[in-house]
Amino acid sequence: MTDTAAQAGELDVLCVGNSIVDVLTQTDDAMLEKFGMVKGTMALIDADQAEALYAQMSPAVETSGGSAGNTAAGLASLDAKCAFIGRVRDDQLGDIFTHDIRSIGVEYATPAATDGPPTARCLILITPDAQRTMNTFLGASVNLGPEDIDKDLVARAKVTYLEGYLWDRDEAKAAFLRAAGLAAAKNRMVSLSLSDPFCVDRHRDSFREFVAGHVDVLFANEDEIMSLYQVENFDEALQHVRQDCRIAALTRSEKGSVVVSGEEVHVVDAEPVGAVVDTTGAGDQFAAGFLHGLTRGEDLATCARIGGIAAAEVIAHVGPRPQVKLADLVVQKL
Amino acid sequence: MTDTAAQAGELDVLCVGNSIVDVLTQTDDAMLEKFGMVKGTMALIDADQAEALYAQMSPAVETSGGSAGNTAAGLASLDAKCAFIGRVRDDQLGDIFTHDIRSIGVEYATPAATDGPPTARCLILITPDAQRTMNTFLGASVNLGPEDIDKDLVARAKVTYLEGYLWDRDEAKAAFLRAAGLAAAKNRMVSLSLSDPFCVDRHRDSFREFVAGHVDVLFANEDEIMSLYQVENFDEALQHVRQDCRIAALTRSEKGSVVVSGEEVHVVDAEPVGAVVDTTGAGDQFAAGFLHGLTRGEDLATCARIGGIAAAEVIAHVGPRPQVKLADLVVQKL
Repeated sequence: MTDTAAQAGELDVLCVGNSIVDVLTQTDDAMLEKFGMVKGTMALIDADQAEALYAQMSPAVETSGGSAGNTAAGLASLDAKCAFIGRVRDDQLGDIFTHDIRSIGVEYATPAATDGPPTARCLILITPDAQRTMNTFLGASVNLGPEDIDKDLVARAKVTYLEGYLWDRDEAKAAFLRAAGLAAAKNRMVSLSLSDPFCVDRHRDSFREFVAGHVDVLFANEDEIMSLYQVENFDEALQHVRQDCRIAALTRSEKGSVVVSGEEVHVVDAEPVGAVVDTTGAGDQFAAGFLHGLTRGEDLATCARIGGIAAAEVIAHVGPRPQVKLADLVVQKL
Repeated sequence: MTDTAAQAGELDVLCVGNSIVDVLTQTDDAMLEKFGMVKGTMALIDADQAEALYAQMSPAVETSGGSAGNTAAGLASLDAKCAFIGRVRDDQLGDIFTHDIRSIGVEYATPAATDGPPTARCLILITPDAQRTMNTFLGASVNLGPEDIDKDLVARAKVTYLEGYLWDRDEAKAAFLRAAGLAAAKNRMVSLSLSDPFCVDRHRDSFREFVAGHVDVLFANEDEIMSLYQVENFDEALQHVRQDCRIAALTRSEKGSVVVSGEEVHVVDAEPVGAVVDTTGAGDQFAAGFLHGLTRGEDLATCARIGGIAAAEVIAHVGPRPQVKLADLVVQKL
């Protein structure tokens, strides 16, 4: 249901990212090898590559995705007030993305591009081990630039949350930096998700500079944080990151998460989960749960537990967004 | 994988129907009441109604559907050789439909419309009782006409299978009648699914005439067959239909199916199923299994059992097409 009432007052979180429709299919390892994909990572592909890969894919299911978009969906499911900035085109996949995010009450007003490439899609191959390997055609997302960052939205949000994938294009990076600058100027928190070890690898120096200079709350998984600091083990990365930003929430799959904030360190177990079906969106939902706790003034360990509950829900089914009301789940499980 | 090798030789089944992308969402009974929908049925809606309903819907998942398209997908999963005729537009939803059906090896060559309304979609509301209530915007499907019925395809197919929904438009009905005429001329079987009790109600007289005059294999559920003959109980309908067509396969949900062919009558129990999640596609998959048995020369009771196995698979998950290889399932269960 479109929630026009939400279009005023303070926001908990403003999420900024690529507007992407996911195209999910189940496959085997041979398919990944055939296309030279690295399991569990995201690769950028162009329109021709997207077409060639899609032609080889089994029947698929389409559903709204995008890292920060998924986080916004998680936050909405937790009854947080949030908004999203990201570009679609005025085409059918753009309509789907827009419908899905608005229908859960997320403010989303970035105008759809009226020309240029079509709405972004991510071809996701799910292997029997529940890993997802992603191939993103950025499409209309490449139209996101600094002019799309609505100053008022940033000012209204307790936290502005940015997905690292934006770093892959100069214009989006400029949008990202503008959002961070505006948030800092209003004494609002800036949060970043590193998104992917290869994304970190492509932009290591500028990421490190940004993390040290501007990030209040950093999200990363084990591979990403080790890649950021080019170290060989998790603990070394941990020691680095605690110097660099106010709060770092590091996820370690079945080993749970570690949260550091200066002297404060919490090692939080993973939430029990039955069969892991599809890990797509696990990091995005962890961020949603954590930020929800943070904006409600919960202590950091509780924030990590809420993140873990949200992540456990999303990995138990195919698709990157929650299928049950996370707010109810948190009441039950916390 | 696109199977170009399949584009020659005899076909088991040619399916003709509307090319539709399903938009599935879970909802409650209040939503159906609000829009005056009759649970478990299909209603035709126009572009404006589709937009108004979509605006009120929760986030959705998009997946290829269409009654005869689902049957083609089931047949492919059973390793039958089959083809599909139906119209999309050259848009993103049309690309999705085309990709999905070709990627499972179904021959599909109906040219996409280059102007006119967009690809058809069916807004499906799934209630907690696993019933699906469908609202179809026919879109580009309205471009299907007799000229789309490829004479060679009909001649190559042991069975030409038609969905009753085509009867809703004169041009599609003309396509339908042309296909039936061509099949009969080549001594091939004609099969019809009644599709929906309201569809039967809209076209009762012409359906009865067609069933009596042209149909070799009729598929109907309890409500549909009772509506066709305007009788109050199943047995009365059964007595009527055995006079009218060579083989009738009547499905009765958890009560299984009844198959009649002249003096021959089989009452076949339903395949056991765990939780029923979404009944979308149950009839389509029953038809797929039944026709697969028939084209392989199985006896009618075995045909009904294969139909039941295919239907049981599809109602155990959301979405109208099989998610496992039906050929393997039949080997296990038969």
